Amino acid sequence: MDKYDKSSPTSFALGLTVCFEAIQYSEVTKLYLSPNLNEGETYDRLSQLAKEKHIPVIINNQKIFKALSGKDNVMAIAEFVKKESQLDSNLPHCLLVNPMNMGNLGTIIRSCLAFGIKDLGIVKPAADCFDPKVIRGSMGAFFRLRVHNFASFEEYRKAYPDHHLYPFMLQAKKHLGEVEFQKPATLIFGNEAKGLDRTYLDIGEPVLIKISSELDSLNLDNAVSIGLYELSKTI
Amino acid sequence: MDKYDKSSPTSFALGLTVCFEAIQYSEVTKLYLSPNLNEGETYDRLSQLAKEKHIPVIINNQKIFKALSGKDNVMAIAEFVKKESQLDSNLPHCLLVNPMNMGNLGTIIRSCLAFGIKDLGIVKPAADCFDPKVIRGSMGAFFRLRVHNFASFEEYRKAYPDHHLYPFMLQAKKHLGEVEFQKPATLIFGNEAKGLDRTYLDIGEPVLIKISSELDSLNLDNAVSIGLYELSKTI
Repeated sequence: MDKYDKSSPTSFALGLTVCFEAIQYSEVTKLYLSPNLNEGETYDRLSQLAKEKHIPVIINNQKIFKALSGKDNVMAIAEFVKKESQLDSNLPHCLLVNPMNMGNLGTIIRSCLAFGIKDLGIVKPAADCFDPKVIRGSMGAFFRLRVHNFASFEEYRKAYPDHHLYPFMLQAKKHLGEVEFQKPATLIFGNEAKGLDRTYLDIGEPVLIKISSELDSLNLDNAVSIGLYELSKTI
Repeated sequence: MDKYDKSSPTSFALGLTVCFEAIQYSEVTKLYLSPNLNEGETYDRLSQLAKEKHIPVIINNQKIFKALSGKDNVMAIAEFVKKESQLDSNLPHCLLVNPMNMGNLGTIIRSCLAFGIKDLGIVKPAADCFDPKVIRGSMGAFFRLRVHNFASFEEYRKAYPDHHLYPFMLQAKKHLGEVEFQKPATLIFGNEAKGLDRTYLDIGEPVLIKISSELDSLNLDNAVSIGLYELSKTI
């Protein structure tokens, strides 16, 4: 296989940093190294790590580099097994409802790890969190999180009934910074274009990131990062 | 002209929202409307606004839509005059040193407006802030800011010697949240890949956004958004 297929049991980690993370924190089935990767320290470390984990190393498969890396100059590709994890019932969660942009999803995953939120729920329909673009956008942070997809918000809620819910909404009254997050907290964010629908106003304690009246909203990944940043002050 | 050229005196605002902002807050020389834009309220409002401002409206120039809008389904394009502004000497500034990613730059501009920071300096080399991708990424917020490019940090400093400087650096000791911003403040952020070089440690009061040791850094637009969010609490 040399192209990512959403229905496949495996996906691809592109780039040296991302490959290192994949090999350390997921099940990698193959490691492809570009013939352009000069032998040297990074090459040695990556090969050594693959050897320790009994991962087959394939050098010079130009087809897969062409098919997967696009414009980027990628030196290594790891094929890994797609696997969801149960979220931790005692730790804070980030819950994204219908995120559609793969770039956003990748940087959100990076921000989750940055602020110590290692449990990420995604309510479908949503961008495919295993897509190589998401994984690469996360700089490999993806592999250090527990990520789980849910068919609906209700399914999430049923699985984690004890979390205190904080939907981020423009219609909320209480400002971020005034909210005291109860533990364990779930910060909930809606879709890029539409946000969360009004039914979330009746759920938990809605939170507003106060912004200028001169524009509608923040970019989703910025809103999430700010929310997680404030939450990280309390954990 | 039907393709953006960096050396041209004009650029393009793509999309209805962005066109509205361009017409209201910049000098638009032509407005192109797609033949696929159904007549209706938006169409009427945009045509009316163009008429009031004596802007020529051109319907059905498919060439320009093809050349500029790529995969996006864009219904309106405004050609506007590129113009830099002096920054306000009394108000807070955001200063980006060598930002290279156009998507980042667009969302940073959106976050600036969101948090009431209307003065943005850019130290070159940097992505072209007038590129249609940046303007579109900003959702048109670009037109409400004063934006100025500087050849060097020294040039910026000479023009605004009284601002209190806060370089955001991973090597800084003081955490964001502990820093008391003095007015007027300049928040300084480095390049996506390299951050600010160590010489900035000797300038003003360096600030650290505390993140997990499990990763190197935040995405630039997220770091800037968090910095501006904290600054907005003080203004």
